[in-house]
Amino acid sequence: MGVDGPGSKTGGSPHDGTLSEMEGFFNPRGVAVAGASKTGMKLGNVVLSNLLRLGYRGRIYPLHPEGGEIMGIPAYPDLRSLGEAVDLAVSVLPRESTQAFVEECAAAGVRRVIVSAAGFADDGEEGRRMQERLAETARRSGMRLMGPNSVGTVSTHSGLATSLMTLEPLRPGNISIVAQTGLFAGGFARWISSTQRFGLAKVACLGNKADVDEVDVLAYLQEDPQTAVVAVYTEGLRHGRKFLELAREVTERKPIVLLKGGRTDLGARMAAGHTGSLAGEDAVYRGALTQAGVVQVEDIEGLFGCAKALSYCPLPRGPKVGVVSITGAGTVLVADACRMRGLELPPLREETLRRVRKSVPEWASLGNPADIWSATLSSGVEGGYRELLRAVAGQEDVDLLVVLFTLVPESEFDAASFLGDVREEHPEKPVLACLLGASREDGERWFYRLEEIGIPVYTSIERCVEAAWALVRAARRRAAERREYAPEGTHLGESPGRRP
Amino acid sequence: MGVDGPGSKTGGSPHDGTLSEMEGFFNPRGVAVAGASKTGMKLGNVVLSNLLRLGYRGRIYPLHPEGGEIMGIPAYPDLRSLGEAVDLAVSVLPRESTQAFVEECAAAGVRRVIVSAAGFADDGEEGRRMQERLAETARRSGMRLMGPNSVGTVSTHSGLATSLMTLEPLRPGNISIVAQTGLFAGGFARWISSTQRFGLAKVACLGNKADVDEVDVLAYLQEDPQTAVVAVYTEGLRHGRKFLELAREVTERKPIVLLKGGRTDLGARMAAGHTGSLAGEDAVYRGALTQAGVVQVEDIEGLFGCAKALSYCPLPRGPKVGVVSITGAGTVLVADACRMRGLELPPLREETLRRVRKSVPEWASLGNPADIWSATLSSGVEGGYRELLRAVAGQEDVDLLVVLFTLVPESEFDAASFLGDVREEHPEKPVLACLLGASREDGERWFYRLEEIGIPVYTSIERCVEAAWALVRAARRRAAERREYAPEGTHLGESPGRRP
Repeated sequence: MGVDGPGSKTGGSPHDGTLSEMEGFFNPRGVAVAGASKTGMKLGNVVLSNLLRLGYRGRIYPLHPEGGEIMGIPAYPDLRSLGEAVDLAVSVLPRESTQAFVEECAAAGVRRVIVSAAGFADDGEEGRRMQERLAETARRSGMRLMGPNSVGTVSTHSGLATSLMTLEPLRPGNISIVAQTGLFAGGFARWISSTQRFGLAKVACLGNKADVDEVDVLAYLQEDPQTAVVAVYTEGLRHGRKFLELAREVTERKPIVLLKGGRTDLGARMAAGHTGSLAGEDAVYRGALTQAGVVQVEDIEGLFGCAKALSYCPLPRGPKVGVVSITGAGTVLVADACRMRGLELPPLREETLRRVRKSVPEWASLGNPADIWSATLSSGVEGGYRELLRAVAGQEDVDLLVVLFTLVPESEFDAASFLGDVREEHPEKPVLACLLGASREDGERWFYRLEEIGIPVYTSIERCVEAAWALVRAARRRAAERREYAPEGTHLGESPGRRP
Repeated sequence: MGVDGPGSKTGGSPHDGTLSEMEGFFNPRGVAVAGASKTGMKLGNVVLSNLLRLGYRGRIYPLHPEGGEIMGIPAYPDLRSLGEAVDLAVSVLPRESTQAFVEECAAAGVRRVIVSAAGFADDGEEGRRMQERLAETARRSGMRLMGPNSVGTVSTHSGLATSLMTLEPLRPGNISIVAQTGLFAGGFARWISSTQRFGLAKVACLGNKADVDEVDVLAYLQEDPQTAVVAVYTEGLRHGRKFLELAREVTERKPIVLLKGGRTDLGARMAAGHTGSLAGEDAVYRGALTQAGVVQVEDIEGLFGCAKALSYCPLPRGPKVGVVSITGAGTVLVADACRMRGLELPPLREETLRRVRKSVPEWASLGNPADIWSATLSSGVEGGYRELLRAVAGQEDVDLLVVLFTLVPESEFDAASFLGDVREEHPEKPVLACLLGASREDGERWFYRLEEIGIPVYTSIERCVEAAWALVRAARRRAAERREYAPEGTHLGESPGRRP
């Protein structure tokens, strides 16, 4: 009857009732894996190893013509011999064997299959025809097919990972990723595991999208209680209109950050070769996606950087940024970046200036961005930050805060303590931090200290401002939905508060 | 007679003859430091500590009204009591005491002074007048003044560092930095020390530029044998025309990468407050700087990323990039990035395809960017990279190579070995690498392995392509100078080869 994953307490099914079509891709009661070797370490064995190591709690069925055992688990010669119509089958077979396996799935009443082989619509006319046959087989039997050219899904809450690349445990969190690449269940997942603080809920790697596409997964994530932010990498939205309609609904409650691959003619040509996607006119996409409230970014760093801020922070009431910095060049560059992103820097008010006057020499002028250098002369570095930040945060028309640090032994102090204070005093105002230069050790220590308390940290001014801009975009979208839309430069209504 | 720094072997002067005006800012025979405390750890003490710890080989003279000892070194009550007109004085005194000290320097025949205090042209009309007085005092006595609002200079070859922030030893190298901020002798220097592989020659932090400005330092670096690449951060070129004329000369032999702070109205306003700079019209700058062959970047990451590539790589013969990638999304995004940067992706030729045919399944199409995924099916990951990269590198109209990796245990191999082979076979073709996702440990290991053999490594596709673009810009500039200018899209003449 298959072997329960190591996370299973009772050996029984952790679920009852019928799974929704998409839920079964992330939270199946059982998974069958075709393509593992009994002797070597094939990619199918990597899938099994991920399921065993990451704590998947459902039943695991290796498939092998000879039966026997694979990696200590009883193997089954075919799907029919499992004794149940398994919730999810994963094919790590060569391209040539894929059609037969998908037909076997259909015959065995399997509801969902993930196909990893490439060489279908990503590779010429013959491949496209083969892919159409796969899709047709799935359609006829009412089975859903993810791929081909897909490494499938990851779900941190169920411990499922169908990736062909060895993963380390990922921190559960509220960001879900839908991507037309396996990178997010491969190298990037390993990067997140070992260097990042943010957590993931679900990852779906869609590959060529013969059947399951962004619309299916987004509709599922819309209702998924573990998902608060959706990050999308797509090379072409097959059902563009449907996606836009759905995205417009989703962004009412959950921000979507999206990176479009194939924005140029050369990129679009590669996209056709990679996932068989038609990249479409970038300008058309951009306008329509913006209309739908989608936050569009230009690269993968932007995708992660914005998703992280949306995961950690409340949405601001408006686009007015208060900046505190110890570096003068930082104030210049952050002002440039805010201007380019359409964020505003409200001038400091009389009252704000009065509050900090005793910390700042009389001759020193002070603006927004506020350069704390002069304040350090009398109050020290920590005192300078603390006084100025508190005053700027307290100014009514400051909607969110960006704090720039440069880490040298001369400015060693506990920033998390006073940033935490500011957040407690103004829970409705997002706080973002930027570390401009630090030794490896200092940088890591500050990064974790600040991210632990929910302050997203960046090492680039432009990335930090981009994330602030994403918060403002998402806030504006939500305010518009509540018919509180205010023109640029005015407040956008009450913050909906921190999301789960 | 002052105390010799720890790097001194003989106790005597390491130099003979007269220093040039600028040379003395980087390689002085002696340094006097005003503003260290005998009891506490003031910023002046940090300067002394940097001189002692980083191996400065000249004489070190702490100045203190009471004489005695500071940090184990004899202190002197004033400059006259040193018994020599010291090559360089560093003032870490408060703003109010600065004018008097600069006058003392002039009276004592000191040739160069660095002034760290802020609150001059960076802070209103009164400050501007005070700064003018400093400059006037220097001018009258023929003394050169760096600052105010400057943390001065770093020279890795002489061990000099006048920074107010504790530095760790920096690897000597061929990049020099001229910046209107102390960041590059502060947090960024610490970041470089502890995480980067590239080396620096000189760093000059110019502050408000009351006297010494970019033109002075650039003219010096033009002739400096240790400098092969110049990185500039400026908030406004006071002597714009002079700078452009000089830059046009410098870029004939040494690439200049430049970041302009204050490119927007808001940024320009902050620049006026930071260094008293007039930021000028960004569009005017951009056009003129491009004309002068300067590589302009948009942020600090671009400044470092491009300078690194220029430091490591030969200049390519043309703008044609060959890309090899294991990730399909990588091929799409790199094609987008190349297109946006005006780089070309020549199609693979018949001969190139013939060379790799036996590594690639018959059904797999192959282009440029080349997705090695299909080749891994028969040749494994390492074999796939090796075969494809060698073939692409061998194609005559490929001028430079970009290789994308994603690091998972399934693709663990020694990339440095075959990248090194490719480089040996084609020493005239720059090779750049991009790591798309890796665990911390894998990422660091690969980073150092590849950078050790002179391959610049990036963790972002766009940064990697930006650096490739910088190489192409610099190559085009040099080719134009040799009257071998070729229109875009054609070869730019022979590569001048790897610089020192």
